[in-house]
Amino acid sequence: MYELTINLKPETKTPLYEQIYGYIKEEIRKGRISSGERLPSTRALSRHLDVSRSTVELAYEQLLSEGYIESQPCKGYFVSQIEGLYRIEQHTHNGAPAEISGRRKFSYDFTPNGVDLNSFPYNTWRKLSRESLVEDRAELFRLGSPQGDEGLRNAISNYLHQARGVECTPGQIIVGAGNDYLMMLLCAVLGTGHKVALENPTYKQAYRLFANLSREVCTVDMDEKGMIVEELERSGSDIAFVMPSHQYPLGTVMPIRRRMELLRWAEKDEGRYIIEDDYDSEFRYKGKPIPALQGYDRNGKVIYIGTFSKSIAPAIRMSYLVLPGSLYQRYRERCGFISSTVSRVDQMILQKFIEEGYYERHLNKMRALYRSRHDTLLSELKKMGPDFDISGENAGVHLLLHFKDGRSEDELIRLAEEKDVRVYGLSEYYVDCPRNTEETVILLGYANMSEEKIKKAVGLLREAWCR
Amino acid sequence: MYELTINLKPETKTPLYEQIYGYIKEEIRKGRISSGERLPSTRALSRHLDVSRSTVELAYEQLLSEGYIESQPCKGYFVSQIEGLYRIEQHTHNGAPAEISGRRKFSYDFTPNGVDLNSFPYNTWRKLSRESLVEDRAELFRLGSPQGDEGLRNAISNYLHQARGVECTPGQIIVGAGNDYLMMLLCAVLGTGHKVALENPTYKQAYRLFANLSREVCTVDMDEKGMIVEELERSGSDIAFVMPSHQYPLGTVMPIRRRMELLRWAEKDEGRYIIEDDYDSEFRYKGKPIPALQGYDRNGKVIYIGTFSKSIAPAIRMSYLVLPGSLYQRYRERCGFISSTVSRVDQMILQKFIEEGYYERHLNKMRALYRSRHDTLLSELKKMGPDFDISGENAGVHLLLHFKDGRSEDELIRLAEEKDVRVYGLSEYYVDCPRNTEETVILLGYANMSEEKIKKAVGLLREAWCR
Repeated sequence: MYELTINLKPETKTPLYEQIYGYIKEEIRKGRISSGERLPSTRALSRHLDVSRSTVELAYEQLLSEGYIESQPCKGYFVSQIEGLYRIEQHTHNGAPAEISGRRKFSYDFTPNGVDLNSFPYNTWRKLSRESLVEDRAELFRLGSPQGDEGLRNAISNYLHQARGVECTPGQIIVGAGNDYLMMLLCAVLGTGHKVALENPTYKQAYRLFANLSREVCTVDMDEKGMIVEELERSGSDIAFVMPSHQYPLGTVMPIRRRMELLRWAEKDEGRYIIEDDYDSEFRYKGKPIPALQGYDRNGKVIYIGTFSKSIAPAIRMSYLVLPGSLYQRYRERCGFISSTVSRVDQMILQKFIEEGYYERHLNKMRALYRSRHDTLLSELKKMGPDFDISGENAGVHLLLHFKDGRSEDELIRLAEEKDVRVYGLSEYYVDCPRNTEETVILLGYANMSEEKIKKAVGLLREAWCR
Repeated sequence: MYELTINLKPETKTPLYEQIYGYIKEEIRKGRISSGERLPSTRALSRHLDVSRSTVELAYEQLLSEGYIESQPCKGYFVSQIEGLYRIEQHTHNGAPAEISGRRKFSYDFTPNGVDLNSFPYNTWRKLSRESLVEDRAELFRLGSPQGDEGLRNAISNYLHQARGVECTPGQIIVGAGNDYLMMLLCAVLGTGHKVALENPTYKQAYRLFANLSREVCTVDMDEKGMIVEELERSGSDIAFVMPSHQYPLGTVMPIRRRMELLRWAEKDEGRYIIEDDYDSEFRYKGKPIPALQGYDRNGKVIYIGTFSKSIAPAIRMSYLVLPGSLYQRYRERCGFISSTVSRVDQMILQKFIEEGYYERHLNKMRALYRSRHDTLLSELKKMGPDFDISGENAGVHLLLHFKDGRSEDELIRLAEEKDVRVYGLSEYYVDCPRNTEETVILLGYANMSEEKIKKAVGLLREAWCR
């Protein structure tokens, strides 16, 4: 019999049974107790260590459950063969493993991609997270529907109907881990042999995705109402990618007539579709919300894509695709077997978040918050004099400044940098083709900045830019 | 001034400020208080309702934050224009919205895809979840690295090195929401113009994926050591998809010599690669774990894919790809901009789960649990007589029964069904080509069944099958 002398420390946070378990495990791993050796009985060890018997029993139970020891009836506990057991040593980290981004940090950053994360409803999310992990335990961890859980799709369908005028059944919805993923999926559903047209400037991530997934892509000019449909027709494309509620980055809202024109273009050929990306349509500060194009579609031509990344947080990887009936069958055949990319726990949290009214409240709060930042930025900019015109007001989370004084984008960005303010040029949103060189356009995003910071930053821009 | 008569219910669970907030919100929505109307001062309303002033202030604060009212200094609170506000009504669900699956439920189901979900470490997961949602709040909700957070990739790299003999830096790892997604991504990285060879029978989900994503696919015969390399050579494929540690569904372990042959095949041409799917390699019950093929690869020919779905739970959508250096650049160019599909909160939970030693303990527990179920099933089956041979023992979570008595798969499945036991035929794992019709093979998965259930179920199978 092996005698174990364990130096127990009752004053530490680690429970006694854990200390005993840990000690014996280590001895077994190091080979100091060989496999086949018999451990002391629980009674003997408890007397030897001067602890309760149940403490020893608990330790032995752990060792048994993990396979370090085995129990032979009437004989006792014996050390197992441990070669099959896992042993993963923890490497200690020296501080936070921050990746060197190489990017300078600015005191004031007018990024157009910002989301105010301080407003994220942590307490609610945590509460719902806890509830979800308690409910229906085993079921939630089983593989769910590839399209996402029906309960969540119900909640999304309901929300889309009321808030966006999107008409669909839960069955048409596919929940996925982000827009990029859903667009990859869409490419797989649509197949090859298509040509995708995007506006210019546009959401370049989408352009890159279609281009890199070997789809033919092109850009089609816009006017102040959005994509020019005659040009679209001329381009020979069969898929149009648009953001009619709030074009990114220009902020253009596609009026009704243009939407109808676009729908008519799509109806001309069976293989034509419109991809409507409703990114950031949630934030309008004046007037009624603009309904989605999809709601006007009577012929199954519009593929609608939306996300919770902008309205909740980017790291919530939850977006959704609404497929028209005509494409649903193709999805089932080509991709219906691809498992869902969103954990069912996260789906349940989001479903509750929506159904219990938190999403509505959160949206309204964010809208009010962004609106007052928008108002502040606008009024501060107006004080700056006539060097530029402003566009993109009253919706989204950034404004555009159109300079007509001949100064280049690089120059304006550099001048701002010298004051520790980061601004963005419109040129990076263009795909390849030559821009209108008469004007220089600068983007100022305000989602991430408090009203105080906005005032200070605009003050610095005035110093930088005004002559 | 508008007088508000609210019927407050102090005895209910809803706080008084919430009741006041809810009432006023509803009145505003229904238009009973028009926009522009002035609300009572907080002092007046608190006196009128006989509640504390701070209760009314809290209610007004909520309404203000969501944009229902606005505050005009020295004048008071006024109802806003509400047309931009969200209003999402909750549809009540009548009971649980269970989808009609149309599938019969069996009392005993020997599914080979089972995972014992009762062992899922809920308490730990919930604890880590709570901790993750408290730590570094804003940062965690910002968009992270497309490959997944470095901390998690560190932990995975460490685990892979120690447990699987996989050699890689964290930079080679891409974390994704499930194997299906990562294989889609891989297809995008590899591009078109490839031919993928799989064994037969095989993991058909992979076959379907490659086939549907317009990749040329074919199958290559296996012998008792795995894929036959001369046949692979003859097939003209340039990508081989194998599961050398534990082939699914046959359980074949590819011995060293065959692995070397496979690696030599890949080295003959720059464009050739091996995809190693290490699914369910965690569970071996006899002997040392078999190291991954990737560990022997000196020429960057092996693409390694692994998952946490089998060892933790299917709904944990977290898998990882290890790209050889030669493909990493291509990934950056073609797909480097595609955002991560795993929420950073989930990544953090998993990282802690691994780093704090819980994963190791969980794996050992699952192994011990599955092993005893394996042992029980094996011993019960051996009592059943000589009608079949058994293969696939000592690893994975299912056994294969090879019947030589001429009875068909359908017949055996039907007989079992009559006893309310579900068993699985090997034929569904074959791709298209004619099988060896001499023998009928039935799969029995045991992950999901307690030892009691296993004994009962085998008893029923004996009644069903033994003549």
